Amino acid sequence: MEISEIYAPVQADLVRVEDTLKSLCRVDFPHLAELLDYSLGSVGKRIRPILTLLAGKFYNYNFEHLLPMAAAVEILHTATLVHDDAVDKSSVRRGRPTVNKLWGEEQAILFGDYLFAEAGALTASTGSLRAIKLFAETLKIISSGEISQALNAYNLELTREQYFQRAAKKTAALFVLSTESGGVLSQAPEESIQILNEFGYNLGLAFQVVDDILDFIGTKEELGKPIGADLMQGTFTLPAMLLRQYYPEEDMVKNLFKTKDRRAGVKQVIELVRNSPVIVEECYQVASDYCTKACRNLKRLPDNPSRKSLLELADYVVRRKT
Amino acid sequence: MEISEIYAPVQADLVRVEDTLKSLCRVDFPHLAELLDYSLGSVGKRIRPILTLLAGKFYNYNFEHLLPMAAAVEILHTATLVHDDAVDKSSVRRGRPTVNKLWGEEQAILFGDYLFAEAGALTASTGSLRAIKLFAETLKIISSGEISQALNAYNLELTREQYFQRAAKKTAALFVLSTESGGVLSQAPEESIQILNEFGYNLGLAFQVVDDILDFIGTKEELGKPIGADLMQGTFTLPAMLLRQYYPEEDMVKNLFKTKDRRAGVKQVIELVRNSPVIVEECYQVASDYCTKACRNLKRLPDNPSRKSLLELADYVVRRKT
Repeated sequence: MEISEIYAPVQADLVRVEDTLKSLCRVDFPHLAELLDYSLGSVGKRIRPILTLLAGKFYNYNFEHLLPMAAAVEILHTATLVHDDAVDKSSVRRGRPTVNKLWGEEQAILFGDYLFAEAGALTASTGSLRAIKLFAETLKIISSGEISQALNAYNLELTREQYFQRAAKKTAALFVLSTESGGVLSQAPEESIQILNEFGYNLGLAFQVVDDILDFIGTKEELGKPIGADLMQGTFTLPAMLLRQYYPEEDMVKNLFKTKDRRAGVKQVIELVRNSPVIVEECYQVASDYCTKACRNLKRLPDNPSRKSLLELADYVVRRKT
Repeated sequence: MEISEIYAPVQADLVRVEDTLKSLCRVDFPHLAELLDYSLGSVGKRIRPILTLLAGKFYNYNFEHLLPMAAAVEILHTATLVHDDAVDKSSVRRGRPTVNKLWGEEQAILFGDYLFAEAGALTASTGSLRAIKLFAETLKIISSGEISQALNAYNLELTREQYFQRAAKKTAALFVLSTESGGVLSQAPEESIQILNEFGYNLGLAFQVVDDILDFIGTKEELGKPIGADLMQGTFTLPAMLLRQYYPEEDMVKNLFKTKDRRAGVKQVIELVRNSPVIVEECYQVASDYCTKACRNLKRLPDNPSRKSLLELADYVVRRKT
C-alpha cells in the first residue's frame, strides 16, 4: 500500500493541518516568518500528525481539537530536530541545509524554543488538560533522553537495554503523544487509549530501529543527509552493537573511535554492516517484532478504515527507505 | 525596607516553593539531578515566584495552585538564562560558572529544553487553562524577543522604541506571567487581573532598565558577572544610547564595534557613562517612571500587606545593586 493510500481516511484533514502550519508562519516579524516557513514547509513525512488524526477516528472525531494537536506534534518534532541539529552541529537534514547551518547555532537555539512554545500553545488550545499534561511530560522525556544520548556519546559499553531505553525516550515518547492524544481528544474509553498508547510506543521503537538501520544501508539521496551520521557523532546504535557481537575479534567500532581519520573508519564499518546480511536481517527482525507488538491489540478498536491505515502504517515504517 | 520584609507576607510559602524546586531535583538520572540541583539551587532573588505569591493574595489565595505556578515562573526564568548563556557563550552568572561553561553548550541546550518542559508541566498541574495559555504565549514572546535581540546585535540604529519593545518581550513578559497568573489562580475579578498585568509589565520594564544601568555602573562582585557584558556581546542598551546622544561628536560606541581590542574599548565606554551623572540619572528616571506607572492602579486592589509589599518591591527594583 502506498503512503497516500494509508493517509486516505484523513487526507482532507491533513490538508487543513498543512494550512494551519502555513498560517502559523504569518507572524509580524519577517525574520521569524522566514525561519518558520523554512522549517514547517511540507518536506517531512508528517507521520506524527497523521497518527493523531487516525487515532482520533475511532470515537467522537473532534476535528476542532484534533487539528491543533496534530499541528502541535509536528511542530514539537520539528523543534527537537532544530535543537538536535544544533547540538550535533549537523549541516544537512531532509536534503537541505539545517537551521544552524543557515542562520547559526544561536538562532537555532532560540528558534527551537519558539517552536516548543508554539507547540505548547496549540496543545493548550485543545482545552484538554490531559493532552496538555501529556505534552509537557513528553517534552521532559524527550529532552532527558537527548541529554542521556549526548552523555553516552562514544560509550561502547551501552547495553541493548539502554539502547532501547534511549529510543523509547527520544522517539517513542513523541509517537505515544501523537496516538494517545488522538484517543484522549476523541473521548475514547480508557482501554482504547491504552491500546493507542501501546501502538504508538512500539511503532516508535520500530521507527527508531529502522532509522538506525538506514543510517548504515540507506543512500544519502533517499535519506536527505549523510550516511553514518550516528557513528560520526559517536552515537552507538543497534547495527553497530550487533557488528561488535558478530565480529568480536576485529573490533572496528572500537578502533574507529580511536582513529584520527574517523570518516574513513566510518566508511569501513558501514561497508562491513552492508556486507553482513545477518546483521541487517536481525535488525529488521527486531523492528518487525515491535511492529507486530504495536498492532496486536488494534483489533480491539472499532473496525474502520483508520484501523486498517494504522496496520498499514506499521508495515510502512519497516519497509520505508526514507 | 529590606527585601526580607517585603517578602514577609509570603515568606512561609516561599519556603515551600523552595522545597518544591528541591523535590524536582530528585530524578532517577544522576547527571540530570546534578544539573537541576546546580541550576535551581537558591542563588537567585526569586522575584518572579514572589510576585506570583503576592499577586495571589488579594482574593481566594489558593496555595495548592499558586505553589506550582510560582515554581514554574522561576524554572521558566532559569531555562531562559541557561539558553541565553549558551547563545552568548557566557561563562559566569550569579558568581558561578554557567551550565554551558561547566557541561558544554550541547548539554545547556538540551537541559534548557528539559526546564521548559518542567515549567510547562508545573503550570499544567494548576489545572487552569488560562494560566497554561498565558504560559505558552509568554514563552513565544520571550523567544521571539531573544531572536530579535540576537539579530540586532551590533545594530546602532536601534531606536528607543525598539529597545523598549525588546525589553517588553525578553523581560516584562515573564513579569506579566508571574503577576497575572497569581490573579488568575486566585479568581481575581477581571479588572484586578488587568491591574496585576499592568503592574508586572511596567515593573518588568523598570527591572530591565536597571539591569542595563548596572551593567555599566555595578561591580562584578555585586552582579556576579563581568561588567559591560551587553556591549561585549554587541547588545546596545539605554545608557549607551544616551551616551551617543550626549556626545554625538566622539562616537565611542560606534568606534567600539570597529576596534580590534573590544575589551579596552568597552572599558572606556563604561568609564564615560560612569563619569556622566546626567546619563545615569536619566536612566534611573526612566526606570523610576515605569515603577510609578506600575503602581498607579495598585490602590484599586484590596488593602492588605501584600499590596504594601508590591509597592515596596517596585521601590526595591530601582534601588537594587544586584
